[in-house]
Amino acid sequence: MSRKMLTISYIGTNYCGWQVQKNGLSVQECVCNAFYKLYGCDVSVTGCSRTDSGVHAINYCLHFDDTKSLDNIKIVKALNVYLPDDIAAISCVDVKSDFHARYSCKEKTYKYKIYIGERNPFLNNRAYRYYKDIDIEKINNFAKNLLGKHDFTSFCSAGSSVEDKVRTLKEAYASVEDDVITFTFTADGFLYNMVRILSGTFLAVNEGKINENDAIRILESKSREMAGNTLPAHGLYLYNIKY
Amino acid sequence: MSRKMLTISYIGTNYCGWQVQKNGLSVQECVCNAFYKLYGCDVSVTGCSRTDSGVHAINYCLHFDDTKSLDNIKIVKALNVYLPDDIAAISCVDVKSDFHARYSCKEKTYKYKIYIGERNPFLNNRAYRYYKDIDIEKINNFAKNLLGKHDFTSFCSAGSSVEDKVRTLKEAYASVEDDVITFTFTADGFLYNMVRILSGTFLAVNEGKINENDAIRILESKSREMAGNTLPAHGLYLYNIKY
Repeated sequence: MSRKMLTISYIGTNYCGWQVQKNGLSVQECVCNAFYKLYGCDVSVTGCSRTDSGVHAINYCLHFDDTKSLDNIKIVKALNVYLPDDIAAISCVDVKSDFHARYSCKEKTYKYKIYIGERNPFLNNRAYRYYKDIDIEKINNFAKNLLGKHDFTSFCSAGSSVEDKVRTLKEAYASVEDDVITFTFTADGFLYNMVRILSGTFLAVNEGKINENDAIRILESKSREMAGNTLPAHGLYLYNIKY
Repeated sequence: MSRKMLTISYIGTNYCGWQVQKNGLSVQECVCNAFYKLYGCDVSVTGCSRTDSGVHAINYCLHFDDTKSLDNIKIVKALNVYLPDDIAAISCVDVKSDFHARYSCKEKTYKYKIYIGERNPFLNNRAYRYYKDIDIEKINNFAKNLLGKHDFTSFCSAGSSVEDKVRTLKEAYASVEDDVITFTFTADGFLYNMVRILSGTFLAVNEGKINENDAIRILESKSREMAGNTLPAHGLYLYNIKY
């Protein structure tokens, strides 16, 4: 028996998120069904994080114990036969027996996609449509002061059971390509809805509702009301995981 | 009453193409339904071209006669309320009374998208997956000899009723961005399946099944068998129309 890490990619639109839920089809359930068909028995899979309903993943990592010593390339190919079209197995590698997809994670990168301009059917459910112009420089002026180790209580939705809200933000910036604006965030960990609140705050800064010099003041207030709105899930992508 | 040109964009996956058909939902039917809701009566719409089932459009143009002198911006907004998510009205402009979406067209650009690398759920039905490496230079060496005014019989599917198969190809080239390869074709007009056959021929050149110096020989043969396979519809995009 050897522990392996599987990387998958999925369009979150049709799922209630990663985690198995009573009311709704989850990505985990589809992955477990594919494993069942491959191994002929239940295989326990542990994901790197919960993702909310509608959130997408470019690289989502999970670990499992391979009881049949299958070849890694064959595992990927076989799972892809059994997975639905909107979930794809990308790679499978051997990891140490104490590797844990969630607890061994050192760094995560999320991207939030926004688009301006005409209605674009190809971006339906894949980016958040925004009707105002974007001032990238203003947003990035605000964003740079969020970098580093801070208590991110102001950027965490109520209902989170996590006690320690200190995280180290390593990347936070906006970039633009054609009509699509991307907000990129890298940290050692994220709080509940943190990326969607950070993204909503970027838009509040863009609109002048929040001053571009107020990042530290918002952090220090430890008040969710000081930050911007929580943007919808369908613009959010779990982009990369570092172990 | 004034003639107007409407530009729409659509994901072709769920449609049997532009043209109304007995067996299957067409883009035209959805557009006509939206017009019916807006005008309260049937509105005749004439498209710039038929597109095959599964083919996408970034910019598809059609003309209609506005019997109620509605504002162009309001027409776009109202149609978008009535159109399904995978079809979007983009713009509406006044045109001369003798303008015809099909016959007034001077130039069309199509793009064919191919992707290499890992299975990517975000490109399902939006690009053709290809399992070999791409030699862009080799393809472009072949492509440049197709440019100009030629009889394109070799690149036309059987069953076409068009007699004059001479077209002027103004652009034909391959480009690459990350894992996505795009073949771009601009001409004064295209024959039945011409872009999909040209794209399949590019891949045959890439694989050495067709020699990169053989473009003129294939054209002069006027034989469909000399060209490459017809690639699937789901990689094809009607990209732009010039009037």
